[in-house]
Amino acid sequence: MAQKKQRSSILERKKEVLESLSGLGGKIYDQLDNGTFPSITMPSRSTENIYYDPQVRQFILGDRKVKRSARNIRHVKPFAQLTWAALFSNELTSQCKTSTLRDVYYSAQAYEMTFKDQQESNNIVTDLETILGFSREDFSIFPEERSAIFGDLTIEYTVPGYEGRTMNLTSHPDGVMIGPALTSSEFVKTTADKVIAVEKGGLFTRFIEESVHKKFNSLLVLTAGQAPRATRHFIRRLNAELNLPVYIFTDGDPWGMHIAMVIISGSANAAHLRELNTPDAKWSGVWATDIVNYKLPTDPLDEVDMKRLYELQKDPRYKEDPLWQREIKTFMKIRKKAEQEAFSRYGLTYIVDEYLPAKLEETK
Amino acid sequence: MAQKKQRSSILERKKEVLESLSGLGGKIYDQLDNGTFPSITMPSRSTENIYYDPQVRQFILGDRKVKRSARNIRHVKPFAQLTWAALFSNELTSQCKTSTLRDVYYSAQAYEMTFKDQQESNNIVTDLETILGFSREDFSIFPEERSAIFGDLTIEYTVPGYEGRTMNLTSHPDGVMIGPALTSSEFVKTTADKVIAVEKGGLFTRFIEESVHKKFNSLLVLTAGQAPRATRHFIRRLNAELNLPVYIFTDGDPWGMHIAMVIISGSANAAHLRELNTPDAKWSGVWATDIVNYKLPTDPLDEVDMKRLYELQKDPRYKEDPLWQREIKTFMKIRKKAEQEAFSRYGLTYIVDEYLPAKLEETK
Repeated sequence: MAQKKQRSSILERKKEVLESLSGLGGKIYDQLDNGTFPSITMPSRSTENIYYDPQVRQFILGDRKVKRSARNIRHVKPFAQLTWAALFSNELTSQCKTSTLRDVYYSAQAYEMTFKDQQESNNIVTDLETILGFSREDFSIFPEERSAIFGDLTIEYTVPGYEGRTMNLTSHPDGVMIGPALTSSEFVKTTADKVIAVEKGGLFTRFIEESVHKKFNSLLVLTAGQAPRATRHFIRRLNAELNLPVYIFTDGDPWGMHIAMVIISGSANAAHLRELNTPDAKWSGVWATDIVNYKLPTDPLDEVDMKRLYELQKDPRYKEDPLWQREIKTFMKIRKKAEQEAFSRYGLTYIVDEYLPAKLEETK
Repeated sequence: MAQKKQRSSILERKKEVLESLSGLGGKIYDQLDNGTFPSITMPSRSTENIYYDPQVRQFILGDRKVKRSARNIRHVKPFAQLTWAALFSNELTSQCKTSTLRDVYYSAQAYEMTFKDQQESNNIVTDLETILGFSREDFSIFPEERSAIFGDLTIEYTVPGYEGRTMNLTSHPDGVMIGPALTSSEFVKTTADKVIAVEKGGLFTRFIEESVHKKFNSLLVLTAGQAPRATRHFIRRLNAELNLPVYIFTDGDPWGMHIAMVIISGSANAAHLRELNTPDAKWSGVWATDIVNYKLPTDPLDEVDMKRLYELQKDPRYKEDPLWQREIKTFMKIRKKAEQEAFSRYGLTYIVDEYLPAKLEETK
């Protein structure tokens, strides 16, 4: 729905989330008070209503709407499920508790609200996101997966028991977990002038050990494969609130390329949301052309990899910048892929000493 | 090989690792000086040489040996690979750098040492473990996966740049990552009197939010599925060095049960190593009998689950304690499984308020 203005205050955002939830409840009460069957209208998320918008540089929903009305006997159940999801989200958020999608599914049973499977409850949570324009993490529903961050950024917690307490993200040299407490923290200060996101834990540790955070004045983010949504939102905050450019390093294959793309341009699944992507982030490597230029050890692209490349070639997100098309073509031509660790063939620190500075310069 | 005595000092252990590496190098030099072809003898890791030892309560290797000699033309390559792996481990460990198995594979190329694939290099690293009786984490070769810990334990780092610095593991309410820096830290002090390990991130966060660490005087460990070896070793240290009993909570299915078992009794793959398992740890739930007693929401066990149960029934580790056989039989009888989150059907905090104290008492 309407794009939310960037807020500096986490607590203000939380207030906004709670207001939007009670706003939804209020609307339903009003309809009941007026003697009408309550109904909710929201943008359709069907494939035909998902468009790529070059202006906001992500997928968005078109003008088609769906209406869910308590008057329609087939709508009564999803309508009740939706209002329950709003109630539960309100409880979680106001009590400062977090939950997972799996937990939501089981919790419904405590309210004698039944979902036939988790798919159904996930879908209702997405409906709620669509209606209110906030993402489920705003409603305290968090993913299982965890990623991590390291570097000179001081944050201030807002979670119960830690309010006002600060922590510097160099405190723990294994990296600091990006979970509900970190994503709901305020940024206090940083000396970093960029964010470097990497796909793999091994490289993240290498970068910390080689002091990439100091040498390159950077915050290091471990996406741990495809970045969880909470992490994508967090990267966006680093970019928007601290004005830090973001550079992404992945494996040199269609899957790594797409990890970067989802951070940059989001996913079709989240076309109903803003604030999950970072349009100005750069995919800095490993490119197909890097594989050639750096003579990296490779593995052949298999059938599944090739099929993926053909899909990506047609994807509107990949038509934004000629870089993507060039790299896709190069992958297709060389039919090879390489991992980030492949640079170790030139010694463990080559990637930090040579490759990283060259690519940061090239993608500036 | 010979079981290493539990050491209180991490630095002493590191010294021991480096000594064992130079000991291996020294032996090879001596053989060369004596004009003989160098050779290395080690216990065989073939299936026929793996036994379950009820005394040490884990798998061990039997008396069969394999000899690798530079005299044998077929042995020359693996012999060279092995000495390279020892050299590389020595470099990593003495320079305080860490690496991954994937990195080892690529790094070999920097030394013009070739492995035909990663399987081959992994296998050589396991040879080195077998010969020296230390695990690859001792040689600074770490897994990609990360798990986490939370609770009142103060640790002191030993990694470069952080030597002597302490941290309390309640510092970050999302949990503290268990990576190379944490596993190589010394334990300074704790008020906890037990360790509670959980399989899933959602429950880990719930436990932190509900102050399980305070209410139950405990350190909370997130295994994040099957616990990485470094984490299993870390749990063992918490048990051995701090005398803390360990309670493990997993999903109520054969896979969750086995996550607990591997923490308790180790795996056949690590029969050549000690110090990865915690024989006195307890699997506290979710048991098959809990599914019945607590009337949990369930999913049916599928064919793969059932097949796994039949395998586990015959596994010697599952014959140690009648509990395991009873639970396997109950799973087979009810043909149902339940996740940890299933307790949310009684409300989000039921698992903390009711189930957890009951099970800690029951498995004390």
